[in-house]
Amino acid sequence: MIYLDNAATTRPDAEAVEAALPYLHEQFFNPSALYSGGVAVQGELRRARASLLSYLGDGAKLELVFTSCGSEADDHAIFASARRGNAVTTAGEHAAVFQSFTELKNRNVEPRFAPLHKDGSVDIDALLTLVDEKTTLVSVVHVNNETGAVNDIASIARAVKAKNPRCIFHSDGVQAFGKLPFRLTNDIDLYSVSAHKIGGAKGTGALIKRKTLALAPYIFGGGQEGGLRSGTENVFGIMLFAAAAKKKFASIDADFTRLKGYREKLFSLLEKDIFARISPEDGTPYILTVAAKNLRGEILQRLLSERGVLVGTGSACSSKHPTSRVITACGVGKEYINGVLRFSFSPQTTEGDILAAADAANGAARELYARTARS
Amino acid sequence: MIYLDNAATTRPDAEAVEAALPYLHEQFFNPSALYSGGVAVQGELRRARASLLSYLGDGAKLELVFTSCGSEADDHAIFASARRGNAVTTAGEHAAVFQSFTELKNRNVEPRFAPLHKDGSVDIDALLTLVDEKTTLVSVVHVNNETGAVNDIASIARAVKAKNPRCIFHSDGVQAFGKLPFRLTNDIDLYSVSAHKIGGAKGTGALIKRKTLALAPYIFGGGQEGGLRSGTENVFGIMLFAAAAKKKFASIDADFTRLKGYREKLFSLLEKDIFARISPEDGTPYILTVAAKNLRGEILQRLLSERGVLVGTGSACSSKHPTSRVITACGVGKEYINGVLRFSFSPQTTEGDILAAADAANGAARELYARTARS
Repeated sequence: MIYLDNAATTRPDAEAVEAALPYLHEQFFNPSALYSGGVAVQGELRRARASLLSYLGDGAKLELVFTSCGSEADDHAIFASARRGNAVTTAGEHAAVFQSFTELKNRNVEPRFAPLHKDGSVDIDALLTLVDEKTTLVSVVHVNNETGAVNDIASIARAVKAKNPRCIFHSDGVQAFGKLPFRLTNDIDLYSVSAHKIGGAKGTGALIKRKTLALAPYIFGGGQEGGLRSGTENVFGIMLFAAAAKKKFASIDADFTRLKGYREKLFSLLEKDIFARISPEDGTPYILTVAAKNLRGEILQRLLSERGVLVGTGSACSSKHPTSRVITACGVGKEYINGVLRFSFSPQTTEGDILAAADAANGAARELYARTARS
Repeated sequence: MIYLDNAATTRPDAEAVEAALPYLHEQFFNPSALYSGGVAVQGELRRARASLLSYLGDGAKLELVFTSCGSEADDHAIFASARRGNAVTTAGEHAAVFQSFTELKNRNVEPRFAPLHKDGSVDIDALLTLVDEKTTLVSVVHVNNETGAVNDIASIARAVKAKNPRCIFHSDGVQAFGKLPFRLTNDIDLYSVSAHKIGGAKGTGALIKRKTLALAPYIFGGGQEGGLRSGTENVFGIMLFAAAAKKKFASIDADFTRLKGYREKLFSLLEKDIFARISPEDGTPYILTVAAKNLRGEILQRLLSERGVLVGTGSACSSKHPTSRVITACGVGKEYINGVLRFSFSPQTTEGDILAAADAANGAARELYARTARS
């Protein structure tokens, strides 16, 4: 099996799982417990927190709140920040941001959606025209999970703050963290990340915030996570997250370069009369999204899977909707709109995987054309 | 080490961990993915859901929403149900319910707190007087996590609905699920449970609801969990939860009887001139809470821990507050209020543990008195 759906989820890193397993066995204590076992686990959480923060910026200026997933981090950031007035985001957001903004309508906040360029990146000028003195929150995805387009959130945040210094800037960094070399700038107030996209387990994420930003809690209770996120900590998931991130960040630059080569190799091997490229060249090396002419992505996906190659058709998280909202917002033409395939990579992806995936995709598309011609 | 702090968290069941580990390795797929690996995992989640529901009632009438913890389930139930008017709960709730009710004040809902009996159970008559035509939600903890008192939530829910059939009834069942033989009645609309109190891992819980009850989502996004709780599912945690619950429920009656014997044995061995009993005899067999006269619980806890016996001082989740809100609400006298110790058991607890714990507690208390006398 060749797994190229790493933007949906990654196989947890076996070494990181091994490193975290003691927290399901001997070190199972509640981190709030006052005896030494509990205190020790609390200390481990503190170290995990600091190490995760160290990849993103100055730990003295940042705070990390462990959440149960990237979606919770996004929801927390949005519902705690958007206030009466308006909140601005893009048409290229993950559903966790997009649906939360849609919900804002019910909470006396006007959601505004900035349009996208063809590659899925936000039209920055259009976004800035939406920001006014009544804007309380701007949220811009760092890496578009369907096209791989990278938004320059540092510049966007700076421009947003220049227009309205009081509004809060959030970015969903789920597809960027551990993949793009990047440090948070002072203009970025909130940043969401997820463990299972980088070799951690599903069920763990984090919301990073500027320390001085006051934020309301999203889950109320025993006061864990500095009072911002109650509930007994998912110790195993957190320790696994930290261990997986440590490995990812150790080779982040080398992986970036190698995967960029693989991405280009893969695209060069795809038949150009079938596949149109959606992902931009300056997008994340971890994603190559293409669209097959007059074919259906989910059928292609199935044929590829029969050939042992697993790929996505867009966001797994919204796979119930046949035509992608984001791909539609990119302005992809009618002939291509239903034929989207997303190849997404991990540091474990090999050149052999790339060659096999190209073969499978070309073959599957030709088979499908032949079937259609026969019928 | 003798671990008697199982109400704070339990050691995950090693067999259940083993059974769930494949979901961190070969079966790591995103349950929303459309290829066979994803579909298979989605099927496993469905089976886990059905099996967990089967312990509580008629699966045809109930729905289970996986959450990241009991606190999230409580918060979801409360914030999605409480509407303009008032909401009624008890002074004996876990912080997840108590703090959420406190937050309701900021959301145009008047929170009302019913007083407790000395054992920590709610004063039902007083609770019912708080319920009126403007009550939209009533939430009553099933088993008080600090005293072990059991509230007869089936009767309470019936009485509440008799007074106001439109209000929603929720119960925090975190300390009851897998421990008390119990089926949800039709009057109970929402019920929260947690995995890590019964041999699952921290980071997994569930909110059970009557199927016909309309509930707003708490985490918005990709539409997982029937649209009620978005975010990629914590597959490993869920499968571990189901496996742990299966074992717990297989011996729930036998464990209940045996632990009741142990609880009484332990109390009988504690020196009566030192320790006053807080837990009622008809409370959960899993908890024995006592209070030592003129001693501090956290110091006793430390001395016990030095003797190899780990116990709680109340709720681990609120261990930052020296005097327990719930114990105070029970009306425990001044001499005892700071001396609370909670022994909490699991099916793995042995009679030897009980004897050793009694010895350690008596010894630690005597040592502490001697120290005080010397100083």
